[in-house]
Amino acid sequence: MDSTIGLSITAGFSAIAFAGYLISDILKRRVDTPRMVEVSEAIQKGAMTYLNRQYKTIAAFTLLLAVLLALSLGYLTALTFTLGAVLSAAAGYIGMNISVRANVRTAQAARSGLGEALKVAFSGGMVMGMSVTGIGLLGVCLLYWLTGDPKQIVGFGFGTALVALFARVGGGIYTKAADMGADLVGKVEVGIPEDDPRNPAVIADQVGDNVGDVAGMGADVFESYVCTLIASMLIGALTYGKSGVAFPLIVQAAGIVSSILATFLVRVKGDKPKDSIKRGMLTAGFVITVISCILSWIFFGGLKVFYATLTGIVTLILFALITEHYTFYDRRPVQTVAETSKTGVATNILSGLALGMESTALPVLVVCLAIIFSYVLVGLYGIAMSAIGFLSMTAMVVAMDSYGPIVDNASGIAEMTGSEPEIRRVTDTLDSLGNTTKAICKSFAIGAAALAAIALFSAYIEETGLEAINIAKPSVSVGVFIGGMLTFLFCSFLLRAVGKAAFQMIGEVRRQFREIKGLMTGKSKPDYARCVDISTRSALKGLIAPGALSIIAPVAVGFTLGAEAVAGLFLGIIASGFPLALFLAHTGTAWDNAKKYIEKGNLGGKGSETHAAAVVGDTVGDPFKDTAGPSLNILMDIIGTVALLLATSFITYALFA
Amino acid sequence: MDSTIGLSITAGFSAIAFAGYLISDILKRRVDTPRMVEVSEAIQKGAMTYLNRQYKTIAAFTLLLAVLLALSLGYLTALTFTLGAVLSAAAGYIGMNISVRANVRTAQAARSGLGEALKVAFSGGMVMGMSVTGIGLLGVCLLYWLTGDPKQIVGFGFGTALVALFARVGGGIYTKAADMGADLVGKVEVGIPEDDPRNPAVIADQVGDNVGDVAGMGADVFESYVCTLIASMLIGALTYGKSGVAFPLIVQAAGIVSSILATFLVRVKGDKPKDSIKRGMLTAGFVITVISCILSWIFFGGLKVFYATLTGIVTLILFALITEHYTFYDRRPVQTVAETSKTGVATNILSGLALGMESTALPVLVVCLAIIFSYVLVGLYGIAMSAIGFLSMTAMVVAMDSYGPIVDNASGIAEMTGSEPEIRRVTDTLDSLGNTTKAICKSFAIGAAALAAIALFSAYIEETGLEAINIAKPSVSVGVFIGGMLTFLFCSFLLRAVGKAAFQMIGEVRRQFREIKGLMTGKSKPDYARCVDISTRSALKGLIAPGALSIIAPVAVGFTLGAEAVAGLFLGIIASGFPLALFLAHTGTAWDNAKKYIEKGNLGGKGSETHAAAVVGDTVGDPFKDTAGPSLNILMDIIGTVALLLATSFITYALFA
Repeated sequence: MDSTIGLSITAGFSAIAFAGYLISDILKRRVDTPRMVEVSEAIQKGAMTYLNRQYKTIAAFTLLLAVLLALSLGYLTALTFTLGAVLSAAAGYIGMNISVRANVRTAQAARSGLGEALKVAFSGGMVMGMSVTGIGLLGVCLLYWLTGDPKQIVGFGFGTALVALFARVGGGIYTKAADMGADLVGKVEVGIPEDDPRNPAVIADQVGDNVGDVAGMGADVFESYVCTLIASMLIGALTYGKSGVAFPLIVQAAGIVSSILATFLVRVKGDKPKDSIKRGMLTAGFVITVISCILSWIFFGGLKVFYATLTGIVTLILFALITEHYTFYDRRPVQTVAETSKTGVATNILSGLALGMESTALPVLVVCLAIIFSYVLVGLYGIAMSAIGFLSMTAMVVAMDSYGPIVDNASGIAEMTGSEPEIRRVTDTLDSLGNTTKAICKSFAIGAAALAAIALFSAYIEETGLEAINIAKPSVSVGVFIGGMLTFLFCSFLLRAVGKAAFQMIGEVRRQFREIKGLMTGKSKPDYARCVDISTRSALKGLIAPGALSIIAPVAVGFTLGAEAVAGLFLGIIASGFPLALFLAHTGTAWDNAKKYIEKGNLGGKGSETHAAAVVGDTVGDPFKDTAGPSLNILMDIIGTVALLLATSFITYALFA
Repeated sequence: MDSTIGLSITAGFSAIAFAGYLISDILKRRVDTPRMVEVSEAIQKGAMTYLNRQYKTIAAFTLLLAVLLALSLGYLTALTFTLGAVLSAAAGYIGMNISVRANVRTAQAARSGLGEALKVAFSGGMVMGMSVTGIGLLGVCLLYWLTGDPKQIVGFGFGTALVALFARVGGGIYTKAADMGADLVGKVEVGIPEDDPRNPAVIADQVGDNVGDVAGMGADVFESYVCTLIASMLIGALTYGKSGVAFPLIVQAAGIVSSILATFLVRVKGDKPKDSIKRGMLTAGFVITVISCILSWIFFGGLKVFYATLTGIVTLILFALITEHYTFYDRRPVQTVAETSKTGVATNILSGLALGMESTALPVLVVCLAIIFSYVLVGLYGIAMSAIGFLSMTAMVVAMDSYGPIVDNASGIAEMTGSEPEIRRVTDTLDSLGNTTKAICKSFAIGAAALAAIALFSAYIEETGLEAINIAKPSVSVGVFIGGMLTFLFCSFLLRAVGKAAFQMIGEVRRQFREIKGLMTGKSKPDYARCVDISTRSALKGLIAPGALSIIAPVAVGFTLGAEAVAGLFLGIIASGFPLALFLAHTGTAWDNAKKYIEKGNLGGKGSETHAAAVVGDTVGDPFKDTAGPSLNILMDIIGTVALLLATSFITYALFA
């Protein structure tokens, strides 16, 4: 099976090469509007400043944990852990560096029409897609090639989870502090439009889109991608030997190849960008299905493993359809939320919450069916392979997601620089599609994290050699209860951090409007950097507590109540975290789109009381969908990697096992 | 140990006799203000009409389930089930009949001062306290005396759970539809005070307090009380034989006796009602502690079982302190929520949600410590006994809770009939204490339900004889995931039902203000009955779906995935339902009290923009704390009784066990 590893490594390098090709293609485009360049450079500077400071904080944590790992589990684990952190950071760095350059070039390309602008924006997103999958697959393959044992790669997964935690939590706090500050003062109090250059928080807001939705989401999916691979290799090694290890790698290699092919399809026709992206997705899905069918036959002499993989692909499609149903403004649920805004904020909030709670049912049931079905086919390996199938479309989905902030920024840049209406029309069309794709990617990230967690859970069971994890034992059921509660506590940290940061931001924006003379008339410029700084400091401060909680909890439970209790903890976190994450993401998106539905002229349109009520819902939903919800993804997985790493220590040293 | 049963039966009869004494004492008081009598009779009529219609619906369901139980599990189960339902309904009927009569007599007694009014109101509440504990203990004891086998009483527990489900869900929808309708139109749109007789929904609102907080809460606690008794007797029989069965009964008998004693202490001094109630609580707690210490020595020749019981009592005290910290307006957390109202509704909502999420941590940890500690002492029986300890104060807590709607109604009646300021001052003082006690009782009910669920879970494990319930099996972990999701789906049904009902109520109240001439000037009377009818119909309609869901889910999982999966389902529901219930209750109460804090003149006081923002938070919180949150209590337990009843059937007939 060494040839499989070779092929997978080749696919990984191809992804990186393709990313390089896309980068050079984007960078060679010149921007000839000086005002656009200026705005874009402010965003670039803000984003890079934040990312650098965030990585410094992460580096400190990584170093500390690496020393602890070296002392407790040996140098190899410490090394693979550090490598995971470094590679995840690198993927985020590359992807975001491009997205903050693709934005202005998309605005520029809009002069040449929708097709050209779509091409630039989607290519920019695909750089992130290729970085995540290419670097992820390459890292796992090379480490496996060097060590020959998937167990040795678990540290790598923990490294990616650590970076994801900080990137998601920090990015989420950053982006929503800026967004809420910009909206609540600029739009609501002062009454200037979104993305108005007179708003002091406007650059921070644009930066936030990148650090949250590009770097944060990228690191999140990177972690799910890597951890699912490691978990399936671990289970594969125990059940099918080398073929079991190689198969998930080659499926992901096929995923990369099909995504590269599909990228070219997204470019062909430009008049209907949604159809164009859909065509790309369906093609990628079809190619992966065919390839994994053939590979299953070659590797296992039968199609059972293929069916398990296909289960994952079908799950992904169902996730997209369910998300569409609950969060798009042309569907009943969101329109109902919009209608309840007629009776005020309270009814808007309550109907949004009810929608979000209801929307957890189908995705959880779909995942449960996938678990049962794939387990009946080929046992725990089947569960892991359905997660691999779900994640085989990672590059396309990440590209679609990173496309969102690029076109959002492009639209903002066009507005801030007072571009011609035809340019604005193009960027606005792309932006409204971006909102659609972002919602689907949020659900994807949640599903991916939950499936990765379930795969890690299965691997933990194989790894600990515990024949039964008995919830009849109080230590185990206590683990489940603590897990169920931790997700709520974790979210409270995040909501509070956003609240505090937004409060400071509001104060600063108000101060600037009050103190800077000539700001409203456009004679003076606001102090963008101060707002960027507030978001940055708040984000870095806010990520400490949830970060510490998510690492300390499994360690504390493991060393007091033992390895079985950690399994309980892990299951409790998934059981409450999965629906909670879906609830937060869907509620937030539904409120956002209910507002947009009204802004399209329904129910009184912009400026009506109904609209004002919907705006409040949207503001409440911001940290739901962009901070607390997505951060739960990482919580579900980081516990798993810690548990896997320390499994044997828990068994040996637990106080009351 | 037959003497113990005899003593317990005597205690049960004493409770009923004491309730009778209190009833005669209340009813012999004459009300000499015709206007007060008129209002009170309208409330009585509305409450009784609703309760009768609710019981008709419950009777239909009970009959259906009794037939199914008779066919599948035999006549005895069907009979005990029906008896449980009938007795629970009877307790609710008695308690509510008195509370709707004690309200007007409290208003009347306010003429003679605070002491006299407190005496009437607390006595009224204690009738419910005595009904719940007396009828509950008596029912369990008599059935055990007749059958000699705790297993045969499980059907009785299911009957109480069924009534609790409908009473909680129906009462919760009823009360909040009326409350929101009355507030959103009357207070916000028309600008008349709360409890103004011109408001068409004011009677429905008063009725709602009774059917929600008296009948609903009573049935809820009745169910936890009975189910905990049954579960501990089941475990006790298997581990300690007859002594194990008798001990929980005698502890609860001691609880009744000490509560009767304590009732007299609440009456002595009237100038500081809070201290008076506290004194009663502490005395009752002390007496129970001493008695159970002595009994543990007599029954088991040691104090281990006593320590487990004491753990439960300590847990109750900690619950009260934690609730106080998070929800009272003289503490930091609520004041912070009030302060965030300065920047508008969105920040008020977010800070309330963050508070609620944070507030789940300590109660869950306290319960986890209690589980571990009591298990280490005496195994699963210890866990059950800590639940018994927690519930030994049931009569006092229920009395404190039912006291709330009585004084709330009294204050409303005083306002509606334009009573003298000194009367209003007395009823308002009692009412503000009522808000405090209600918050603690909410937490008590959640804790009691969670502990009952954990006791039922332990009994289910003993009962099924499953040596290990292995979450490594996908069917079990799928059960956990479905359980984790069900709580969210269940809440969405309830929030939606309240939303729909409130929407109708708002329409009706608006219509009356528009169409009835002379309503605002007081020349015409509103049509109270129409509003009462809307609440009634909405509540009865809204309880079908959540009711069906909570019975169908365990049956469906049990007959497809087997008995182990049901254990997983059960654990998943507790793991997410316990923190979710705490979150909803604490968030709702904190919003309520943040509003009250502002109304006391802080941060701009009534009429300020800050107050307006806090009012929205309070409205959103209404169905959180009074509908969705408390209904989760029953969901946690009803699954347990269904699982226990059908345990052997699941093992025999499951499709893929």
